[in-house]
Amino acid sequence: MNLLDHHGGIYTDYYQLTMAQGYFLSGRADTVSCFDYFFRENPFNGGYVIFAGLTDVLEIIENLQFGGDTLEYLKSLGFRDAFLEYLRSFTFRGTITSAREGEVVFPLEPVLRVEGTLIQSQIVETVLLNFLNFESLIATKASRIKMAAGGRRVVDFGLRRAQGLGGIHGSKAAIIGGVDATSNVYSAFHSGFPVSGTQAHSWIQSYGDELAAFRKYAEIYPDRSVLLVDTYNTLRSGVPNAITVAKELEQSGNRLIAIRLDSGDLAYLSKHARQMLDQAGLSYVKIAVSNQLDEYVIRSLLEDQGAPIDVFGVGTRLITGQTSAALDGVYKLSMSDNIPRLKFSENYTKLTLPGVKKIYRFTDDQGLFYADAVALEEESVPEIIFHPYFAEQRSALQRYSSEPLMKTVMKEGKVLVRSSAQQSAEYAKERLSRLAAEHKRFENPHIYKVGITEQLMHLRTKLVDEFHQK
Amino acid sequence: MNLLDHHGGIYTDYYQLTMAQGYFLSGRADTVSCFDYFFRENPFNGGYVIFAGLTDVLEIIENLQFGGDTLEYLKSLGFRDAFLEYLRSFTFRGTITSAREGEVVFPLEPVLRVEGTLIQSQIVETVLLNFLNFESLIATKASRIKMAAGGRRVVDFGLRRAQGLGGIHGSKAAIIGGVDATSNVYSAFHSGFPVSGTQAHSWIQSYGDELAAFRKYAEIYPDRSVLLVDTYNTLRSGVPNAITVAKELEQSGNRLIAIRLDSGDLAYLSKHARQMLDQAGLSYVKIAVSNQLDEYVIRSLLEDQGAPIDVFGVGTRLITGQTSAALDGVYKLSMSDNIPRLKFSENYTKLTLPGVKKIYRFTDDQGLFYADAVALEEESVPEIIFHPYFAEQRSALQRYSSEPLMKTVMKEGKVLVRSSAQQSAEYAKERLSRLAAEHKRFENPHIYKVGITEQLMHLRTKLVDEFHQK
Repeated sequence: MNLLDHHGGIYTDYYQLTMAQGYFLSGRADTVSCFDYFFRENPFNGGYVIFAGLTDVLEIIENLQFGGDTLEYLKSLGFRDAFLEYLRSFTFRGTITSAREGEVVFPLEPVLRVEGTLIQSQIVETVLLNFLNFESLIATKASRIKMAAGGRRVVDFGLRRAQGLGGIHGSKAAIIGGVDATSNVYSAFHSGFPVSGTQAHSWIQSYGDELAAFRKYAEIYPDRSVLLVDTYNTLRSGVPNAITVAKELEQSGNRLIAIRLDSGDLAYLSKHARQMLDQAGLSYVKIAVSNQLDEYVIRSLLEDQGAPIDVFGVGTRLITGQTSAALDGVYKLSMSDNIPRLKFSENYTKLTLPGVKKIYRFTDDQGLFYADAVALEEESVPEIIFHPYFAEQRSALQRYSSEPLMKTVMKEGKVLVRSSAQQSAEYAKERLSRLAAEHKRFENPHIYKVGITEQLMHLRTKLVDEFHQK
Repeated sequence: MNLLDHHGGIYTDYYQLTMAQGYFLSGRADTVSCFDYFFRENPFNGGYVIFAGLTDVLEIIENLQFGGDTLEYLKSLGFRDAFLEYLRSFTFRGTITSAREGEVVFPLEPVLRVEGTLIQSQIVETVLLNFLNFESLIATKASRIKMAAGGRRVVDFGLRRAQGLGGIHGSKAAIIGGVDATSNVYSAFHSGFPVSGTQAHSWIQSYGDELAAFRKYAEIYPDRSVLLVDTYNTLRSGVPNAITVAKELEQSGNRLIAIRLDSGDLAYLSKHARQMLDQAGLSYVKIAVSNQLDEYVIRSLLEDQGAPIDVFGVGTRLITGQTSAALDGVYKLSMSDNIPRLKFSENYTKLTLPGVKKIYRFTDDQGLFYADAVALEEESVPEIIFHPYFAEQRSALQRYSSEPLMKTVMKEGKVLVRSSAQQSAEYAKERLSRLAAEHKRFENPHIYKVGITEQLMHLRTKLVDEFHQK
């Protein structure tokens, strides 16, 4: 899904272009570099992130160009002719090494790196951050909601409250995170996942008569009706009318699929509705609910209240990731001219990790993930890792099996690895099953160990010392 | 900016299409209807909303079609041939009456209404909600941030943290809400507003030497350099190096525009940097800051701390609207078959206002907005309004001058009114200046009066009574 078409080059921050022109004009057009993508904090005060957005980012970067009138526009902003000529034939020719889409990842580890010229790497920064940050945020939220719902069906209803066109990739990310279907026809069309939806209040209102409205809907969709029962009064009107129609459907050999509750107290109403349905011999009719749901509300409905709910329609808080509206992922230079580079900043937690790096993941004998190690590219599997800031804290890894977490997904500008939303969803599910429950807790989750190797730690110390000696 | 192109028809929730087919197959393809757009709560616990997104929505709706392979896709989902033929020639032919883009609007008033067939009105619902909700949210957030910044310059830096492609219209909405410029080249290209940006940490890191990096940048951009001073150490390295370069620029008759701080304590650092710049005779060099800003942080920096800051770069919290990730706008049927329609729901605050309606705005003799009245379309200016739920609370309006708030912006599917982001921004600024300060307070703002007319109240009561008599 590349809606940016031939305008992809300008889906960027202005300073990327002023810097790119600067590199170009100062004879550094071919200077090699390495940039890392990583985030500093898990969203939702959670214990992990589902890495998503990679497939879309790679497709966009592979096709990135400064087409249409974009060069005339940049000329009007004062960019110089020689640089505009460079942009006219721009193609991203770098190499990207990354964790797989759907991977369970953690703060401070560089889950993706871009190697290419300074100019090329800079021009793709914004679109890369934009998609990885957003899709990872929503995939993570979706995984939490799906977890709270247990095995129950969860449907994304968010498009109307999505942040503009963000809904397009938001719904895709929700699928990657584990949601079963979406109401978003546009995304389902482009990405091939299941759509879902039946009727709104307007259908019932437009008839003025709830029973007539239910009957008509069931007549047209005898094998796929979900009746919305809260337009007037759920228990005194909606549910009784739905029962009448369900019984009529039985006459013609059909079955009502479900009723949906969209207001009021969903625990109270679902319990009473369940009772009424069961007493009418309609125990097969499912109960779907919607209205301001998220992982906390769902957990409360199911665990605290024992609400007999089968399907959750989740909108705003899924598609926007509320309460965290953004993942704080950044893109930092770690090497240029084959020299490892560092950023200090005023806050020590913003000190970056220099050099071209990779990640090893360690797994215990139960198959559960134990720790991740950030190492320099040339290093073999480490036996010990150090806390990224407090060298006193370290972990021995000899007892654990290891696997490399990143692989080359784009080489010289060509995509090597593609993953459908469903494939990424399956991978995410498998990987999440290998993360211990205490890292998945909603409240105060156990922090997953991400450490750095001794060699990387020493490189950083050396660069810091060099700076202070200047 | 219509990126949906000829796939606009399926940028919708699936149930819009199942309902549309239902209306079509039950012989109600020509049934007339009226739907209202309104929201129930101000975002950010604030006192108002800047209405935005209208221009984009109208453009998308005017061009909405089921093109490309979308009909084949819908056929694969089971939609029937006769209905697909109807969709093949689909054009929205309805009429839209709305408040102007940039208007200051309030909860519960139907600021936009759609009149057309049930099918047509239903198919456009999702895209309409999506754009109005999102752009209004961001325009409102932008207006709050701009207010906190006083007359100081505010630049949108949000694209990298935007919710995917939501950044495109988010940056536009930020301009409507009063932000001065954006880093988002894509949006600026499409909408014609000012872009801004200079350099990132990577520029400095890539040289390894801060002074060399500053010098090179200033050499290439002698009249437009903003130097980022926190890559290594703001006060001991960044600011001194910037001063050196500013002095060198003076030699060639140029002036350094500004320095930018992006980490650390922005009050502390800006005060010390200001002092150092002034002592070097560089009082013309401005101080720009960025890093996790929003209206509260800006207010604290300026009012509580007296920080000498000239420019604010605002990213994540502007472009995502954090702490409110969505405006809760809805689209409710108020009339079909020329009969006023009602939705009850389990919560009385979700009781809708029936009939085709309009809004009058009342202004006091100071030119300040006093109250809004929701009236039926055929009503003249009311003399008294009633609280939407508590009829005991009412306001007399004889002393105030009135104006109609809505006008026809689309007729039979053709857009009548277009507004550039800059025009909408000017209008928003003028209208906000007529909203009393107590409604603009960040904490516990004074609630603006929105009432309904006696006639509308009686219509609602009559419909409620009719339902209970059934």
